[in-house]
Amino acid sequence: MSLSVQFELSKEYLEKLKLAIEQDDGAFVRETMEGVNPADISAVLEAFNAEESKYVLDQLDTWVGAQIISDLDNDTRKEFLKVFGPEEIAKYIAIIDSDDGADILNELPVKDREKIIAGLDHEEKVSYLLDLLRYEEDTAGGLMAKELIKANINWTVIQCIDEIRRQAGNVEKIYSMYVVDDRDKLLGRVSLKKIILSDDATRIADIYSDDIISVQTFMEDTEVASLMQKYDLVAVPVVNLQGKLVGRITIDDIVDVITESAEQERQIMSGISEDVEEDDNLWVLTRARLPWLIFGLFGGLLGAKVIGFFEADIRRITEIALFIPLIMATGGNVGIQSSSIIVQSLASRSVFEETTLRRLFKVLIVALVNGLVLGIVVLGISYWILEWENLKFAVVVSIALFCVVLLASFMGTATPLLLNRFNINPALASGPFITTANDILGLGVYLVVVRLFYTI
Amino acid sequence: MSLSVQFELSKEYLEKLKLAIEQDDGAFVRETMEGVNPADISAVLEAFNAEESKYVLDQLDTWVGAQIISDLDNDTRKEFLKVFGPEEIAKYIAIIDSDDGADILNELPVKDREKIIAGLDHEEKVSYLLDLLRYEEDTAGGLMAKELIKANINWTVIQCIDEIRRQAGNVEKIYSMYVVDDRDKLLGRVSLKKIILSDDATRIADIYSDDIISVQTFMEDTEVASLMQKYDLVAVPVVNLQGKLVGRITIDDIVDVITESAEQERQIMSGISEDVEEDDNLWVLTRARLPWLIFGLFGGLLGAKVIGFFEADIRRITEIALFIPLIMATGGNVGIQSSSIIVQSLASRSVFEETTLRRLFKVLIVALVNGLVLGIVVLGISYWILEWENLKFAVVVSIALFCVVLLASFMGTATPLLLNRFNINPALASGPFITTANDILGLGVYLVVVRLFYTI
Repeated sequence: MSLSVQFELSKEYLEKLKLAIEQDDGAFVRETMEGVNPADISAVLEAFNAEESKYVLDQLDTWVGAQIISDLDNDTRKEFLKVFGPEEIAKYIAIIDSDDGADILNELPVKDREKIIAGLDHEEKVSYLLDLLRYEEDTAGGLMAKELIKANINWTVIQCIDEIRRQAGNVEKIYSMYVVDDRDKLLGRVSLKKIILSDDATRIADIYSDDIISVQTFMEDTEVASLMQKYDLVAVPVVNLQGKLVGRITIDDIVDVITESAEQERQIMSGISEDVEEDDNLWVLTRARLPWLIFGLFGGLLGAKVIGFFEADIRRITEIALFIPLIMATGGNVGIQSSSIIVQSLASRSVFEETTLRRLFKVLIVALVNGLVLGIVVLGISYWILEWENLKFAVVVSIALFCVVLLASFMGTATPLLLNRFNINPALASGPFITTANDILGLGVYLVVVRLFYTI
Repeated sequence: MSLSVQFELSKEYLEKLKLAIEQDDGAFVRETMEGVNPADISAVLEAFNAEESKYVLDQLDTWVGAQIISDLDNDTRKEFLKVFGPEEIAKYIAIIDSDDGADILNELPVKDREKIIAGLDHEEKVSYLLDLLRYEEDTAGGLMAKELIKANINWTVIQCIDEIRRQAGNVEKIYSMYVVDDRDKLLGRVSLKKIILSDDATRIADIYSDDIISVQTFMEDTEVASLMQKYDLVAVPVVNLQGKLVGRITIDDIVDVITESAEQERQIMSGISEDVEEDDNLWVLTRARLPWLIFGLFGGLLGAKVIGFFEADIRRITEIALFIPLIMATGGNVGIQSSSIIVQSLASRSVFEETTLRRLFKVLIVALVNGLVLGIVVLGISYWILEWENLKFAVVVSIALFCVVLLASFMGTATPLLLNRFNINPALASGPFITTANDILGLGVYLVVVRLFYTI
């Protein structure tokens, strides 16, 4: 097995490394990192500050350094690159794949960006980067790399092999060659397997497959992800409006898109308003958390207002206060369950979508069943087990609970559908928003039901 | 562009297809599905019942049918295969990659499974399947396929090419060849690119790379996923305890693992206790939702008990009831935020983990800031804007809120850490469990604070 797997990070090693950096012991850095996978070194560097990391990078091969920089977490990299001069960054950018290169440039101030591009003497790379900088980050254009291997339809196999040889240094991972016409229009692809198994003189036109799935530059990254997932692709060619081949997206970038959007959804569901991690500083953590907390606070104050309208009832029947938590909690739980099921079904958009009416009807039935069961359970427990003398009030609570379950199911279903219609992320409906809205509505329903029964 | 992309599913087409099936018009099925990507046909079949789907499959090429069966959603496939005889299933299993084949067999009753294996005349496939059936579904062994291309270290390039030719039909996607010794021990890999660029007589020993990352059969699927994501791998070889190469995991299966575990987490967070989709039947949907709803109900009843202890206070100061929603909502929101941040940081386990004490300390500081801000906001609003006459009570609510924020932050942080320590999915802590616990504790704290201030 290789060194890269055996490389185990220990606290001890980190301490030794820190000491070596302090004492300017470059030999230690070089020796212990020899043959280690760059992704592992990136992980180590997350624990060091920018100057220390730069010291480590300066000891290593430029190629290794370039991989490490591509691998670094965006936030870390931003800090990290501040201690580098534009010429130094240019040295790495020249080696890094164009998609990662463009990402790095996008993270830098415009002034630095121009200096770096001016400092690149690799003409092809410059044109790649300038092209990529034009695209929005979350589109196929923003994800793709310009490095790919293409073959003209009129070539023979031996010409393809020559092209692979010529590009071997630029394109690290080759899965297949894209076949284009004289105007670079994408026609199909030919797998390396086919190239290996065909005679040198075979014409590409005779062996290529025109059954190729491609995406357009403006396609959203999450759409590219579901497409690649659906068709089990490891790479997908990107074409412009004229059908010209302009880049290639590989699955590793798509895996990152999938992971990030899952993370983002968790944050939305938890009422965290910006992308934070546990190790962010206090200010960032607080800033990400306060907005929804304050929103919830206003919800709570509105709830106080609602209860205030019924203060006289509560004075008369103190039991009303007892069941406020029950009503709120159940409303919240039902709402989140409902919205979560809808959000999931919106995400895995099936071809055979149910109509909104049918959806709501089904939700209604499930809500009726849930509401009935919960109502009966509450009635049973409060009457038999808690041996509650006030049967009438137990019945009223059950009825109110039933209504709240229906309402929360409806809200939990309708809100994500509505958000989705307006192109807002429907996951927002599984967050504090729905809970707060359900809290207030649920309270209102509860108190109105109570009053109805006690004034009739 | 290819047919597969242009294939647009319309309601119209589905209706025509349904009609064709009813009228036994096989020609329509064959013609309209000619050249369509099997993944698209699978999507169509999700809308049909098992008999109709079988009719469609019977019209198509066995190879296409095999791809469609692999692509189907597990639940659909289970229903679907009920209308097939063991010999028919065997016909497809013979073509399907061994990993998907083993998954399908695992979904079938043991009796059928044995009949199918007995019906396979492909000896190698039988041994593959029997081997794969031994592994747990959520391990590397359960994910891997046996189909892969290996080269003996003593071979030359031309021998590799012969092997690729021999296996071309069995192994659809080839990224690289794995290099083994005479006892099948994994030594490294050689990329197709290298094979193309080397002379036929070159010895593999001279061009292979021993820097290879592999996983062991018992590694958990989510661990394999983070490993492949970290090192940007499209395939990873699987070895047994002796280091013998036993299989290969490709990235498409890993993408599914990542998506499924994100989905599962969302369900846990939303209090849904089994894997459901919107189109599941009412019974499944209700069964998945009721357990946590009833749990929440008991929480609510416990809350009623807690408030019950303070009934006399409420009778005296009705305002107490007004702020129950505020206290509960804030406690819930703070708890979910805290747990979500911890869950995320546990998922992306960094090399440099903070100690539990440091973590709790940091959480405490954030909680202090949040609690202070929220307390002041509530005080300000209730006093100045709502022009509340009862200043003393507003102060008491602010203090209680502050305490609840601290408590909920602590609970939200400690619970996932504790669950994780006992190897329980920490995401459970972001679900109804934490909300319910926070509700009750928060209520208790609130009422105790009120009593303290009103009896002193």
